[in-house]
Amino acid sequence: MHMPDEGRHRAVYLTEFRKPLSPGTAETPEPRGEQVLIRVVGAGICHSDVHVWEGVWSSTGAPRRLPHIQSHEIAGVVERVGERVPDAFREGTGVLVYAWQWEHDDMFTAEGLTNLSDSPLVPGIHTDGGFQEYYLVPHYRYLINASGISDLAAAAPLTCGGLTTYRAVRKAAPYVRPDDYVAVIGLGGLGAYAAQYIRKFCPQANLIGIDMKESAVDFVSSITPLDSHIVPHDGDVLSSIRAETHGSGLRAVIDLVGSGTLSTYIRALAKGGIYVLVGLMGSGKTDTISPGSTVLLERNISGSYVGTLAEQHEVVALARKGVIDYRKPVTARMPLDDAYAGLQALHSGQVLGRQVVTP
Amino acid sequence: MHMPDEGRHRAVYLTEFRKPLSPGTAETPEPRGEQVLIRVVGAGICHSDVHVWEGVWSSTGAPRRLPHIQSHEIAGVVERVGERVPDAFREGTGVLVYAWQWEHDDMFTAEGLTNLSDSPLVPGIHTDGGFQEYYLVPHYRYLINASGISDLAAAAPLTCGGLTTYRAVRKAAPYVRPDDYVAVIGLGGLGAYAAQYIRKFCPQANLIGIDMKESAVDFVSSITPLDSHIVPHDGDVLSSIRAETHGSGLRAVIDLVGSGTLSTYIRALAKGGIYVLVGLMGSGKTDTISPGSTVLLERNISGSYVGTLAEQHEVVALARKGVIDYRKPVTARMPLDDAYAGLQALHSGQVLGRQVVTP
Amino acid sequence: MHMPDEGRHRAVYLTEFRKPLSPGTAETPEPRGEQVLIRVVGAGICHSDVHVWEGVWSSTGAPRRLPHIQSHEIAGVVERVGERVPDAFREGTGVLVYAWQWEHDDMFTAEGLTNLSDSPLVPGIHTDGGFQEYYLVPHYRYLINASGISDLAAAAPLTCGGLTTYRAVRKAAPYVRPDDYVAVIGLGGLGAYAAQYIRKFCPQANLIGIDMKESAVDFVSSITPLDSHIVPHDGDVLSSIRAETHGSGLRAVIDLVGSGTLSTYIRALAKGGIYVLVGLMGSGKTDTISPGSTVLLERNISGSYVGTLAEQHEVVALARKGVIDYRKPVTARMPLDDAYAGLQALHSGQVLGRQVVTP
Amino acid sequence: MHMPDEGRHRAVYLTEFRKPLSPGTAETPEPRGEQVLIRVVGAGICHSDVHVWEGVWSSTGAPRRLPHIQSHEIAGVVERVGERVPDAFREGTGVLVYAWQWEHDDMFTAEGLTNLSDSPLVPGIHTDGGFQEYYLVPHYRYLINASGISDLAAAAPLTCGGLTTYRAVRKAAPYVRPDDYVAVIGLGGLGAYAAQYIRKFCPQANLIGIDMKESAVDFVSSITPLDSHIVPHDGDVLSSIRAETHGSGLRAVIDLVGSGTLSTYIRALAKGGIYVLVGLMGSGKTDTISPGSTVLLERNISGSYVGTLAEQHEVVALARKGVIDYRKPVTARMPLDDAYAGLQALHSGQVLGRQVVTP
Repeated sequence: MHMPDEGRHRAVYLTEFRKPLSPGTAETPEPRGEQVLIRVVGAGICHSDVHVWEGVWSSTGAPRRLPHIQSHEIAGVVERVGERVPDAFREGTGVLVYAWQWEHDDMFTAEGLTNLSDSPLVPGIHTDGGFQEYYLVPHYRYLINASGISDLAAAAPLTCGGLTTYRAVRKAAPYVRPDDYVAVIGLGGLGAYAAQYIRKFCPQANLIGIDMKESAVDFVSSITPLDSHIVPHDGDVLSSIRAETHGSGLRAVIDLVGSGTLSTYIRALAKGGIYVLVGLMGSGKTDTISPGSTVLLERNISGSYVGTLAEQHEVVALARKGVIDYRKPVTARMPLDDAYAGLQALHSGQVLGRQVVTP
Repeated sequence: MHMPDEGRHRAVYLTEFRKPLSPGTAETPEPRGEQVLIRVVGAGICHSDVHVWEGVWSSTGAPRRLPHIQSHEIAGVVERVGERVPDAFREGTGVLVYAWQWEHDDMFTAEGLTNLSDSPLVPGIHTDGGFQEYYLVPHYRYLINASGISDLAAAAPLTCGGLTTYRAVRKAAPYVRPDDYVAVIGLGGLGAYAAQYIRKFCPQANLIGIDMKESAVDFVSSITPLDSHIVPHDGDVLSSIRAETHGSGLRAVIDLVGSGTLSTYIRALAKGGIYVLVGLMGSGKTDTISPGSTVLLERNISGSYVGTLAEQHEVVALARKGVIDYRKPVTARMPLDDAYAGLQALHSGQVLGRQVVTP
Repeated sequence: MHMPDEGRHRAVYLTEFRKPLSPGTAETPEPRGEQVLIRVVGAGICHSDVHVWEGVWSSTGAPRRLPHIQSHEIAGVVERVGERVPDAFREGTGVLVYAWQWEHDDMFTAEGLTNLSDSPLVPGIHTDGGFQEYYLVPHYRYLINASGISDLAAAAPLTCGGLTTYRAVRKAAPYVRPDDYVAVIGLGGLGAYAAQYIRKFCPQANLIGIDMKESAVDFVSSITPLDSHIVPHDGDVLSSIRAETHGSGLRAVIDLVGSGTLSTYIRALAKGGIYVLVGLMGSGKTDTISPGSTVLLERNISGSYVGTLAEQHEVVALARKGVIDYRKPVTARMPLDDAYAGLQALHSGQVLGRQVVTP
Repeated sequence: MHMPDEGRHRAVYLTEFRKPLSPGTAETPEPRGEQVLIRVVGAGICHSDVHVWEGVWSSTGAPRRLPHIQSHEIAGVVERVGERVPDAFREGTGVLVYAWQWEHDDMFTAEGLTNLSDSPLVPGIHTDGGFQEYYLVPHYRYLINASGISDLAAAAPLTCGGLTTYRAVRKAAPYVRPDDYVAVIGLGGLGAYAAQYIRKFCPQANLIGIDMKESAVDFVSSITPLDSHIVPHDGDVLSSIRAETHGSGLRAVIDLVGSGTLSTYIRALAKGGIYVLVGLMGSGKTDTISPGSTVLLERNISGSYVGTLAEQHEVVALARKGVIDYRKPVTARMPLDDAYAGLQALHSGQVLGRQVVTP
């Protein structure tokens, strides 16, 4: 590892869309004001990284320019701090980085809805992220103290996968009564967190896991028990849900896929139920719903996008306290030079769980 | 008017779907237990009555049998009471009848979500309703004391039109911040109530009225001021909304139409906003939404179906207190024999506002 | 056991306040309309029964007259039903009885706030209760199906002790963030339920148990683990709380005692926290609070009284599903003739947990 | 007026507690980073200013040091901005300053509960405030654009008096049903805002004003109509409330006094009602409440402290839109040299409404 005081550190660059990432070096910046320089210990690989790599969001400024350093799921250790950073973030402190940063404070950030900021500026998506040895956090407010998190690298995906599912489940929880049925659609890395949150925050409910792959069902089941599961290609999924729920339907759905799934599963939503849309696999597509049934059954549909800074603090506290297992969802770790291999594995659908690069 | 103690009273019957209603008489029942016999003073005509008349819901038990007496918007005066009816409902008391009655108490009714009962039994839809001189209320709990309501007949539509819009607006109100824009789609009878509720419960918002007809815009504007309005056939409605809202979009939509409107207007919904679906014009059809935008903008869609018994009490209190004008939405009154003419006028789209039959 | 068709069944009567209960018989009624006759399997003994026995509430109509049959925590099996009772309650069905019944439907019952009815009519308190072989339920809506509850007698206290604590914890839960501290004051029978609910519905929190008796701490600890506990006579309880919470104070307090405790423990309530008052030991007394601290720290105090009918359904579902252990809080069972002995044991402070009479 | 580019500007100093304020000058700072220099147009005088002047809070760092410049209700015009301030705050923009600033971002500020920050740093209380010609805003996020506010000086008290009452009323509003009674205790400057908010956000309720002074009743009545009022020294205030509410009691109380008032008025709180404590007149004192009634009636007591940054934006929008009249509560304006006279008038109880210094 190059020491930061030599002025440069190792990084992996996206230099051209859809081409292999290139190893290189980056200037190690000096933190000023509220800034904090951290040594990266873990940098997760997320589906959004595939979209950035493909260049499909480039017209919206994601990334702002090439070459670009990817990864928005960042865990690290404080290396040096700016002069206005409080003592709580002294050198050597383990931290997780809230990724959903913003450029200008606005009405949404004032309300605590930081995930809805009008000027998002996300490391690894808009600006340089975690595929490097050192990352400059623009403001200490984005840091969450990770003391008590023994496996810091494995905690990196808590800043996207673990956060996004937490917000979604907390939105659904108030709708769920004892004996109700709650379904998670998509049992990959996100599902591994979501199933755990449902178990903890909806202890009164029956949890149904749904995924096209038996292996995904097995993966999540190995982390937290499901009350039942459905593999849709086995036949008519709506009949299966009707049978599993004894006719009552789903009181809540956490849809981590979002690619045509709404059109199907909304039809299984019980009276007064909520469908939380999370997955972005279907961007650009449309789903169909019946307005009549939506009215007569008072169904609710809510989009849920990543999570707020306050929720990020909560997620880290839950992991620290052992309420959720943050290690089991992580199924692969790799050195910085293998970041591209990890990205490709995800791209080609070979990955169950989350992968973390350890620079 | 035949006196009830003669044993029979006048009524108008639906004897065959899509055929003129027939005048006749009905046996005047004696109230027992919790039952209350009321003399009908006003019986509103609602779009649902057209659907019942057409027979499109007959397979679902609406109505349970022919001949059938229509109208679920019932106002009247207590004539005689069963032996277990509390003193509050003594003879001569003006009352409104909560229409969304139920056969068996269940979990929804226990929660106060009486509108979602598993065994709805609605007068005028399932059982005999208000197009008759006397109506037997199955339980005094469905009665709302109408003291202070000087024009009782005009208050009849508060039990459906005035209730449905109240619930919808109260669902939307918590989402609305100062300076936000709220749109009402459909400026007929329902719109005349909805616009008033928005003015009162979202005083901080800008109210936009949307309807295909200029006359409907004028009608609602004559009851409560709109900040602006849009008549969609003038051009691209999304551009118009963008212009009217200075680019910020709609924070809340109250959709009283529901016929393909969701597909269009959901695209104008601002970040964190709510789309309340109320109208049932589109039953049987589907709408399309973008799952990606729903997630990224954290949009919410909620169905809202009529209203609860507690909300019905609230609506009557608002009318009594003068918070809303319940008389202006009523644009026509007619004797019992003209009920069919009123139904046909609504069916053929000639009606602005609500019509009330006065037996 | 006398068979009900012989016309009379065994009962135990309160004939004079503060005197031993008297054995006797009661006429076995025939259920009519919505009524249901149940054979009593369990009838819990609650602190309120001591108050009724003492006659301290007699001026408020509790009981309405002497002789009186006590116990409002009733579990049983359907024996015969009235003609308007739905099939779901057929003979032989195990049921729990919602105790917080009412005479007239009103605005509170319409809202689902059945616990706040203006005309409460509670078996065992106002009218005859569970210390008898057969009990006539006035309306099937008060019955909760207990299928899946293997030990029906032990479930009887779920209708007061298990319900009251559930409502209190659900009121507090939304205020609790990860790592916060939640305290239960009073670790007797109520505490045994409350601690379990906190564990399940606030999995993110640290649970502190507080009681004057070590034996009570041990009792609740044997049912569900506490993160820590305080026995106040050991010294300054506020210092102890400060130490246990590392200075952050209590985010939520569930006060099951209510006798001067508010004056003390409100001072340990953290910024933005909630103090839920449940216990009625201090009726007639007053507590003191600092208005200044209440404002500056935005503290909240909420009374919580028994629970709603909907919550009663939820509690039974939680027990059925095994989310809470409903058997361990029950520490004694006794035949009908020993009901008075049980009442005296509670009165003299010898009881940990709940006692159930099994007629 | 000294121009800021001469380097110094006029200010009024608190140099010794309980002594007259002294005129002087202060160095005019240059804004850097996110800072904004504003020319003060209005600086309100609040009861808290009397407390600061008396030195009663000095042990808690309010003020941090003497000499000190008072006033936390600041309106002004942008004079110069730091290099990281967005274009929305260009020179000449009218602004209001959110006073409840903080030193370090923490969990409360992340949640949007900026009023509960662990490190408050309030101009005029901890640091230098508005009794000067120019004030340096530490961060542009504390500025609310005041475009559309024609009388900027009169709007200054919206940042404390207008904000504090808004938060309190919004807390109470969800508890209020049609026909309920809502009382405001204290009809001075705060009451003039609170009564307006209740009218707008609880249009369904009856508003009762309570104050010891007839003149205060007249003052608020001249701004917004009260349904009734009570002047407590006329006799037994609880009887008066019972009479005015026809026995139903108060569903919500906004207590702007807080000096022994809770002990009295909590006894008039209806079942399920909320008592919002706002006033800080009673700091150091205690109130007494009955735990038994709190439980049986499910009463709620909530402290409410100033307001959040998001609520501040809302308050300004309401004033801009004309939902509330922000001018009428202001009853006196005075030049900078008369700030001490204004403070003394308030101290001696001679002031109805709010006073504003116009440097």
